[in-house]
Amino acid sequence: MNNPTAAMLVIGDEILSGRTRDSNMHFLAGVLTEKGIPLAEVRVVADDHLAIVAAVRALSAGYTHVFTSGGIGPTHDDITADAIAAAFGVPITHRADAMALLGAHYDSRGLPFNEARQRMARIPDGAFLIDNPVSIAPGFTLNNVNVMAGVPSIFQAMVASVMPKLVGGPPLQSLTLRLLRGEGDIATRFAEIALDFADLSMGSYPFTQDGRYGTNLVVRGTDRSRLDLAMAALTGAFSE
Amino acid sequence: MNNPTAAMLVIGDEILSGRTRDSNMHFLAGVLTEKGIPLAEVRVVADDHLAIVAAVRALSAGYTHVFTSGGIGPTHDDITADAIAAAFGVPITHRADAMALLGAHYDSRGLPFNEARQRMARIPDGAFLIDNPVSIAPGFTLNNVNVMAGVPSIFQAMVASVMPKLVGGPPLQSLTLRLLRGEGDIATRFAEIALDFADLSMGSYPFTQDGRYGTNLVVRGTDRSRLDLAMAALTGAFSE
Repeated sequence: MNNPTAAMLVIGDEILSGRTRDSNMHFLAGVLTEKGIPLAEVRVVADDHLAIVAAVRALSAGYTHVFTSGGIGPTHDDITADAIAAAFGVPITHRADAMALLGAHYDSRGLPFNEARQRMARIPDGAFLIDNPVSIAPGFTLNNVNVMAGVPSIFQAMVASVMPKLVGGPPLQSLTLRLLRGEGDIATRFAEIALDFADLSMGSYPFTQDGRYGTNLVVRGTDRSRLDLAMAALTGAFSE
Repeated sequence: MNNPTAAMLVIGDEILSGRTRDSNMHFLAGVLTEKGIPLAEVRVVADDHLAIVAAVRALSAGYTHVFTSGGIGPTHDDITADAIAAAFGVPITHRADAMALLGAHYDSRGLPFNEARQRMARIPDGAFLIDNPVSIAPGFTLNNVNVMAGVPSIFQAMVASVMPKLVGGPPLQSLTLRLLRGEGDIATRFAEIALDFADLSMGSYPFTQDGRYGTNLVVRGTDRSRLDLAMAALTGAFSE
């Protein structure tokens, strides 16, 4: 079996307009890297039915797991659940288990379980609910697509609910060598060392400090002993 | 003519691994919204030739303008320029104008203009250079794709170089009504008002404050008088 891969779909006009800065991508990237399910692609689309359907189909076909954020609340602009159902050609209804969860929640708070709130119990046929310990309204998993809320605290809680169910690969580890030298200074030798360790991935990331150029050399891989060897080679080549 | 649209392609393993938190998307989204060129889609892909080529082709065909960030430095993992050339089927060479710019820059700093640094003068045939006042190494525009650096200060400077050349549409404006009421409380009436203003886009964004649920109702559009009318309708319906 190939190692698992993941993609993310961020849904929301508010990200694309610059009104809100997305933080879910960075959070999910870190969790997936630790789990050994590398995040290979992210797409951000608007609250637009056809755009969501097209992106879900493309990502679901291309990756082992897909994670979406946004658009599952009670208001008219929350259209993700319907779009996911449409992407897979399955019906969507107010599901009994989700209705029971939400009904009990609003009863206990003395709030009306009105039509808008019942909208959050609309779940595509065949989906499994994702637990939401923060605000109860569930996410869901349909086929390989995990559909979660956009509010960061709820997104993070749902990710915590989903992760134990997924089978990870070997976790991707990384080591960093920080140099106070510009990239142009180290690039040729760095490329040679990268060729010697073709089983690892090596990247260089420039920074500036007090007006001087510096470079972080990052080595990534799943075999710690290989990472240590590569780091020793880089340290030998570049340390001042 | 239809109003212009934009897409962004973020290129880099370091974003997808969670090592670096992207900030260029949020920056570009704000600039494009002001310019009246709505950002309609963003993709993030790894430092992978085929992934970059496929995304560039899809976004270039789908939107008026495409903006990429990342992968145009001097090291072996900087593969964006070659991938853009491949996406459009044009040759890529060390171009004389870029060589002259970079040569003069490194001469003036007393640094060798070595093979790695010369790599940053590789520009696809037919592209226009994008000015980089921060670190000289240029970006470029090929067809409708603007190729820029990933380092935020350089990305922002390149965006400033490109924007005056683009023809914007009417700027998208937004007004926000902040309510200390949950979304489920206001959703039905909010949807009715949204229908009355079908020429505008209305979204609701929940937040919590001191343990209470609140909602920001956001109205977006290009006609300020319509925005004011919509805001008056929302204020009349919801203000406490």
